[in-house]
Amino acid sequence: MKVSKEKWEKNFSEWLDWVLREAEIYDYGRYPVKGMGVWMPYGFKIRQNVLQLIRKLLDETGHEEVLFPLLIPEDLLKKESEHIRGFEEEVYWVTKGGSQDLDVKLALRPTSETSITFMESFWVKSYKQLPKKYYQIVSVFRYETKATRPMMRLREITTFKEAHTLHETYEDAARQVDEAINIYKAFFDELGIPYMISKRPEWDKFAGAEYTIAFDTILPDSRVLQIGTVHHLGQHFTKAFDFKIQRKDGSLDYPHQTSYGISDRVIAVLIAINGDDHGPVLNPVIAPIKVVIVPIPAKDEETTAKIINYAKEVGENLKNRGITVVIDDDKEKTPGEKFYIWELKGVPLRIEIGPKELNNNTVYIKRRDTFEGKSVPKDKAVEEVNTLLEKIKNDLHEKALKFLKERIIYTEDLNEAKKILEERAGVVEVPWCGDNNCGLQLQDVTNARVLGIPLDEDKDVSNAKCVMCKKPAKSLLRLAKTY
Amino acid sequence: MKVSKEKWEKNFSEWLDWVLREAEIYDYGRYPVKGMGVWMPYGFKIRQNVLQLIRKLLDETGHEEVLFPLLIPEDLLKKESEHIRGFEEEVYWVTKGGSQDLDVKLALRPTSETSITFMESFWVKSYKQLPKKYYQIVSVFRYETKATRPMMRLREITTFKEAHTLHETYEDAARQVDEAINIYKAFFDELGIPYMISKRPEWDKFAGAEYTIAFDTILPDSRVLQIGTVHHLGQHFTKAFDFKIQRKDGSLDYPHQTSYGISDRVIAVLIAINGDDHGPVLNPVIAPIKVVIVPIPAKDEETTAKIINYAKEVGENLKNRGITVVIDDDKEKTPGEKFYIWELKGVPLRIEIGPKELNNNTVYIKRRDTFEGKSVPKDKAVEEVNTLLEKIKNDLHEKALKFLKERIIYTEDLNEAKKILEERAGVVEVPWCGDNNCGLQLQDVTNARVLGIPLDEDKDVSNAKCVMCKKPAKSLLRLAKTY
Repeated sequence: MKVSKEKWEKNFSEWLDWVLREAEIYDYGRYPVKGMGVWMPYGFKIRQNVLQLIRKLLDETGHEEVLFPLLIPEDLLKKESEHIRGFEEEVYWVTKGGSQDLDVKLALRPTSETSITFMESFWVKSYKQLPKKYYQIVSVFRYETKATRPMMRLREITTFKEAHTLHETYEDAARQVDEAINIYKAFFDELGIPYMISKRPEWDKFAGAEYTIAFDTILPDSRVLQIGTVHHLGQHFTKAFDFKIQRKDGSLDYPHQTSYGISDRVIAVLIAINGDDHGPVLNPVIAPIKVVIVPIPAKDEETTAKIINYAKEVGENLKNRGITVVIDDDKEKTPGEKFYIWELKGVPLRIEIGPKELNNNTVYIKRRDTFEGKSVPKDKAVEEVNTLLEKIKNDLHEKALKFLKERIIYTEDLNEAKKILEERAGVVEVPWCGDNNCGLQLQDVTNARVLGIPLDEDKDVSNAKCVMCKKPAKSLLRLAKTY
Repeated sequence: MKVSKEKWEKNFSEWLDWVLREAEIYDYGRYPVKGMGVWMPYGFKIRQNVLQLIRKLLDETGHEEVLFPLLIPEDLLKKESEHIRGFEEEVYWVTKGGSQDLDVKLALRPTSETSITFMESFWVKSYKQLPKKYYQIVSVFRYETKATRPMMRLREITTFKEAHTLHETYEDAARQVDEAINIYKAFFDELGIPYMISKRPEWDKFAGAEYTIAFDTILPDSRVLQIGTVHHLGQHFTKAFDFKIQRKDGSLDYPHQTSYGISDRVIAVLIAINGDDHGPVLNPVIAPIKVVIVPIPAKDEETTAKIINYAKEVGENLKNRGITVVIDDDKEKTPGEKFYIWELKGVPLRIEIGPKELNNNTVYIKRRDTFEGKSVPKDKAVEEVNTLLEKIKNDLHEKALKFLKERIIYTEDLNEAKKILEERAGVVEVPWCGDNNCGLQLQDVTNARVLGIPLDEDKDVSNAKCVMCKKPAKSLLRLAKTY
């Protein structure tokens, strides 16, 4: 069966809005504050599964979960000057309590470097306590002036996982950046999300960072979405807070920090990248329901009752093996209506059980991603379901990787680069001299955004010339149309 | 061993502040916004364990977890007039985004009846979809004018579990109130927290409710803390939002609602009720670490190394049986220093392993609650640990129940009631005519607070007279000094 992907490919934004609401994942656009949506029960479960995975990866690597207050007093937020310059136009301010004006304005945290550094200065006194790796999963707020989009550009980012680490030396912090990159790689790999890793250019690093490494992915409309960032913060914040520790050599010095984050965007991507005109295909890794069983009624009630019992038996077997299953025996809906709903919800596998299956002691299993179906003996159902779930997981990942790779295009020709970007054909990689002016000019002439220097490409550009100034190239530079 | 409880009993407030910070549970008082604290890693784990339990109980009874935006626009919050009257002096308002004034003031949610009812009106159209039971676990904000206290009276309540349900009829909602009470009973029973259940008086019900049922407990200083509430909301909010559904008989009508909540206070109580001058005794049900193993060094290094290996072996055995264990083999601390720290952290069991245990192939296990110790053969260690954890859980619960029961005192004499309350001897129950004026007068003359009509007492008051007006009593009324 050829699966129609017309809506998904051509009208991706509308497709996503439709899926999020109709599949009861995330209600967006009706809540009366711009840029803020509601996680509905089904979406909340997807979110929980994603968070469970990142928690596991962080806990295994010695990160400790904490919870800091939402509100940051103005003077605290403004301690680090680059930081506040980067965020001040985006901060929501609480100015009133009841009918009283507050003495000090309180910011809804846009991110928590300042409050965490402030408290760390009480907690950590010596290199012996280091490294410290904290994280929290919280809402952060950005008064976005750009067009908001569900899960992708929000004013309340409800699933901000921010990690904050503390180290004795610059090198220790740099190693932590590498660890964070590896954690995110493992995270995205497990979720089947393909990514590019780039070192962001100077002019686009985090406000208050030495450098920023970013994970980006490509959405169905070939535009790029940033899905994770890792920052080496150096001593920017510890200096601003005059926070020193005792070092191994006995001296006092400012410790070094990193921070790294992911957000709701990961969930948006999980829903977006594997889709068709029936809805999303949820990766079995995070699908709240792995299998839906739809009994197909017979002409007589007696056989129908038998079919439903048979379906329940199959359901029990799956449940006993830890597979989340729903038996949809709603009598007011036709099988066709049920197929529509569960496809829209992206349930990876559907089992149909009708008179034929009852007679033959089989089940009919259909994959959500390919719509391929097959009959298997009832007593092989659990085994087959497990095999297929694993296969869907791998196939989705492979397909997504292929999609991404096909859309990264190398060129040494500026006009070709422009054309690729204008036509939304993908991400462009060009040779670059390393001069920030060339990078900024490149953004201007292509009307695109520099993602940075690829950290996951080993192309030799030593003989190439910078696409702007024609001086010898020092590295590749990635450019894309971005969200 | 007689365990000293001087500080815990006599200076409970100071004791709690000390424990929360020194045991690295919750850093309060240093974060530069009044009434807001930081959950540190150890405290966060206690919190996670508590939340895991309430999630389980709610999920099992058909509740679905959701996540609503933090910010509620002013007009939405003000839809239900009683509700906003109850909360308006406590609401934090966001008035600025960046440097711009917002068109509409946005409230930090004090609770979510308004936003949830608003969205339900899109989601629910027919009785066929009912009941709906949603819950979320979020921060809520109250601009408290009373003295703030860590976890007990906060301006950011970080662990607000609020459930919101929707029903066709008043009676359905009343039955849901009963279900909620049973869920909370199971929750507090499992946590070993004793409680009184009272129907709050008219003048103290939730702003926008038909009636409110509350769970209260008694803290070591004999003052009462409200730890959970259940509200029958009737049609107050659905009417305010003009939200109708189709009923079974075909007519359109406003559905009925309930809401019920618990907060950080549950965790405060868990830490507070089982304490002594060494710190808290954590209930094994929520203790992040069930057992700490402290190796006692020998005089020679070789034996010490053997002891540490032995300790690790015991630790492995416990881990393999799913018991969270820490082996504290820090060489820079003495066993005495370690005992101090782990007692302060409230770890229910300590295993000491020294030369004697090594020679005899035993372990020495000590209970945190009673400080009773015993030697058991190494191969019986896991079994004994499990037995003791279960025993500690039961003993703590029993002791706490006894503490509570001893502090609930019945009297028909107003002067005695006053005296009991003044002397902080406990909670008073008096016969009451049912007239609100008598109840309010009673509060005045005793300088205490009416908790309401006991729902967990079956004392017959048919022959007693109201303690205020001397008319025939209709019920008991509970009074207490409260937090």
